[in-house]
Amino acid sequence: MYDLIIVGGGVAAFTSALFAARRGLKILVIGKDIGGQANYTDLIENFPGIEATGGYELVSSIKSQAEYWGIEVLQAEVSRIKQASDSFVVQAYQKQYKASAIILAFGKTPRDLGVTGEEELKGKGISYCASCDMPLYKKKIVTVAGVGDINLDAIILASKFAKKAYALSKTDKLSGHPALIKAVSKKKNVEMVPFVQILSIKGKDHVEELRLKNIKTDQQWTLKTDGLFVELGYIVHSGFVRDLVATDEQGQIMVNDDQSTSVPGIFAAGDVTNGPYKQAVISAGEAANAALAAYDWLQQKHGARGLTSDWTQIKKVNKS
Amino acid sequence: MYDLIIVGGGVAAFTSALFAARRGLKILVIGKDIGGQANYTDLIENFPGIEATGGYELVSSIKSQAEYWGIEVLQAEVSRIKQASDSFVVQAYQKQYKASAIILAFGKTPRDLGVTGEEELKGKGISYCASCDMPLYKKKIVTVAGVGDINLDAIILASKFAKKAYALSKTDKLSGHPALIKAVSKKKNVEMVPFVQILSIKGKDHVEELRLKNIKTDQQWTLKTDGLFVELGYIVHSGFVRDLVATDEQGQIMVNDDQSTSVPGIFAAGDVTNGPYKQAVISAGEAANAALAAYDWLQQKHGARGLTSDWTQIKKVNKS
Repeated sequence: MYDLIIVGGGVAAFTSALFAARRGLKILVIGKDIGGQANYTDLIENFPGIEATGGYELVSSIKSQAEYWGIEVLQAEVSRIKQASDSFVVQAYQKQYKASAIILAFGKTPRDLGVTGEEELKGKGISYCASCDMPLYKKKIVTVAGVGDINLDAIILASKFAKKAYALSKTDKLSGHPALIKAVSKKKNVEMVPFVQILSIKGKDHVEELRLKNIKTDQQWTLKTDGLFVELGYIVHSGFVRDLVATDEQGQIMVNDDQSTSVPGIFAAGDVTNGPYKQAVISAGEAANAALAAYDWLQQKHGARGLTSDWTQIKKVNKS
Repeated sequence: MYDLIIVGGGVAAFTSALFAARRGLKILVIGKDIGGQANYTDLIENFPGIEATGGYELVSSIKSQAEYWGIEVLQAEVSRIKQASDSFVVQAYQKQYKASAIILAFGKTPRDLGVTGEEELKGKGISYCASCDMPLYKKKIVTVAGVGDINLDAIILASKFAKKAYALSKTDKLSGHPALIKAVSKKKNVEMVPFVQILSIKGKDHVEELRLKNIKTDQQWTLKTDGLFVELGYIVHSGFVRDLVATDEQGQIMVNDDQSTSVPGIFAAGDVTNGPYKQAVISAGEAANAALAAYDWLQQKHGARGLTSDWTQIKKVNKS
């Protein structure tokens, strides 16, 4: 029996573990993989207070900070969370774990292209976050493949930093807001590549070139590029909690100001929530909020069970 | 003329400067002091990704990160912000600065005791944030002076970490939630000191002792302590913007999910907002959100004026 089970293995999960552990809660973190989405980022330059770090390094260091205060970590996939009378039961690989409160922090996954070479070169020249990584490509050649406003936004950012930006499109147009399309069309260092499909991505330790095909003519050719930005949006794998907590039309978990969800005792933090912007430090901030709110909830509403030391008194007083 | 003026000089101010600068905005940060509230913290152990840092060091490093992307910083006190027809005019020391968007990130100030030695020993054994600093006092002697639930919460935290905790009270009781009072009363390592007033705080490089007075008998004595936690709440110095943006009863600036305020183009982040919990990383997360929202607002709603490069196109398109 734990005070708190945190579902996830990235920045949000371990930041909430850190803050909750410093409050003396008994904590289990269950994550499918340690690192989460930060694993797909080779260099993070916009985490405040840290000049430059790798994604995995950032999560590892937060994990160590939390472990210093005493947490348990289990690498497993959570398949179900059930609400029992006065606790939550978390199912992971045939086993059940009980806790008084839950923080959902299992992030999101960028939609990928599904082409050869992509898995190997994720975080090595392939980025799914222009806002995070574009400034790393100052005076380099980048290629942007995606749809809608996020794609246009990435192309505009590319034009500011890169020497040359290729904007790939499956048609002879770019889709999205007319103002953004117009802005893109004025960028002298942006070249649109129409009717194109990516066949594969090649590179030794880092992206070097794309194998492309013209959809109309079937002609194939190779495009040299230093980086590839994929802007196809994200998937939140919240299916296993969608009958438990309220989610929006994208499957994102809806949260209040204190990161509480529609179910008392369940909180959510990080990319999995319906917050408007997704960044590592935003996830971390939400996670700290969620941990402190979970602590207060355990203290004020739920009573004492599972909490360390003589918190049992509180429950009795609350009930009298 | 700037794209964005950020008012403040702490974690929130420079984190929003970092994120906005990486988006290519022309930015002026105006802060009364560089460091903000973090200056009163000698050791921060709960900023994710950074094992241990000083408050001033943390803010300095975020400032450097932002400066790398090109920002201007002015050390001055903002006395007024006026809304002009299509911009904001910020008054600081007789001078006026114009911007298309504003981020308010000037933090809060803890209420202090106002006694001799307090100013000198702030951040050197005197803390105004039990949640931040109590874990630093493992097996030490701490004294807590304050009122209400935040005071009781600090005492309970003290009992978990410290060897011995003194809870000072001006009466013969502690005030706050009965459940918390009951919990405090069960803590064996907490000693309540009734009818007491702090006269002065002494210590060479760090708090060593408190000079106390019994309010009823006027008797004075000295109490040895390793740390003093002051829990009297906070003051948000938002008077100069209270006729501009909506604030709550405590003077905190009310924000939406994307950190926008009641005035389009003005955003707020950090301790100055009505967010439920105050921590450096929470401020940083809000600040990143505010910067990205300000960028999007400038791009979509406000048009191009002041934005670098050929963003002028957008305004024309929007107007046609």
